Amino acid sequence: MYHRLISKAALGRLPIYLNYLKSSVTSPTVSASVIAHGLGIGEVTVRKDLNLVSGEGRPRIGYFTGDLIDCIEQALGLCSSIPAIIVGAGKMGCALQAYGGFAQFGFHVLACFDSNVSKLSSEDPSHLVLPMEELEPFCRKHGVHLGVITVPETAAQSVCDRMIRSGITEIWNFAPCRLRVPDTVTVQQENLALSVAHLHMSARNRQAKAEQSPEYQP
Amino acid sequence: MYHRLISKAALGRLPIYLNYLKSSVTSPTVSASVIAHGLGIGEVTVRKDLNLVSGEGRPRIGYFTGDLIDCIEQALGLCSSIPAIIVGAGKMGCALQAYGGFAQFGFHVLACFDSNVSKLSSEDPSHLVLPMEELEPFCRKHGVHLGVITVPETAAQSVCDRMIRSGITEIWNFAPCRLRVPDTVTVQQENLALSVAHLHMSARNRQAKAEQSPEYQP
Repeated sequence: MYHRLISKAALGRLPIYLNYLKSSVTSPTVSASVIAHGLGIGEVTVRKDLNLVSGEGRPRIGYFTGDLIDCIEQALGLCSSIPAIIVGAGKMGCALQAYGGFAQFGFHVLACFDSNVSKLSSEDPSHLVLPMEELEPFCRKHGVHLGVITVPETAAQSVCDRMIRSGITEIWNFAPCRLRVPDTVTVQQENLALSVAHLHMSARNRQAKAEQSPEYQP
Repeated sequence: MYHRLISKAALGRLPIYLNYLKSSVTSPTVSASVIAHGLGIGEVTVRKDLNLVSGEGRPRIGYFTGDLIDCIEQALGLCSSIPAIIVGAGKMGCALQAYGGFAQFGFHVLACFDSNVSKLSSEDPSHLVLPMEELEPFCRKHGVHLGVITVPETAAQSVCDRMIRSGITEIWNFAPCRLRVPDTVTVQQENLALSVAHLHMSARNRQAKAEQSPEYQP
């Protein structure tokens, strides 16, 4: 089934709507303006977001609360549990394996793989690190199509190739390099430094604007 | 000085231009179309990006290579070293402290702070973890205005308040909660799960579109 592509910003608001609908709405129907008011988010934004996942609301009624919850959960993939694996049991790999936020969108990190046998896990079941040889059989057995790369730049392409041979079609790459992949594979490049650079630039501009304002007092 | 706000996507391309100009351009002038062709990026995109950091190029000439390098470095903040601190020496905090990518944009993580004394560092100088009591004097002494929050949700607001009292005005928040801050403070909320959810949705749509195409063979 083809869904309209939801922007990252809108996607980020869906769990907020879901939480609000489940915790604060007791009536059988709810309108975009009620949600907007309840959450302090602009009404136009809420209307657009809900339209993406559930079509337009009915005039004077809005949405049936239960239906809207179902649509948001479906868009978020909460109804289906999506298995993922990580290759690279360094600090970032381990931090991602321990990160609790993925479940919100239906993702479950099943295991982490590493070629360094000293990193392989012993007893802690929440921190499963397996040898690279097991990557392909593991992915085939558990139907894993989503892989995260947290190895150094020099190893990233060969890990990527190996993931693709293991049936992985969605790659989230933390290594600072562009990966060569066939058309059937989607790669998302992560650059954490970009987030902080953007934060710094926004703050600097805000400060500069404030200083230009006639009310500015240093 | 007020700079135009550069989008995250454009910001991500600046280090690519910089690397290209420094490694592959030997002529004293260079045009947007040469850069676009050399990097396989759309010419309109390159033209817009360069216009943001260095104004329009001269007709028939383009940019003076050295001047363009200076402008990009300035926009990236490479000329100034921006100190940052992290509060929360858990897995994510340690992973960020070890992350090498920040230097690309001029950021340097000076130290990590934690209230748990068992996490305080002993000998390893690359992994400096200090007690929370030292946060304010440290930030004042080193002129730190950028802080990263990697503590659990329940502790995030009090850490944020303490950062602000320490002179921090730019906060990158990994805790899954909205922070209450005064107008003078800029917060960037990080949600790593969003990146992976967006990747999954893009891949799913791409697959659905491919299946609708007349050439599709399963």
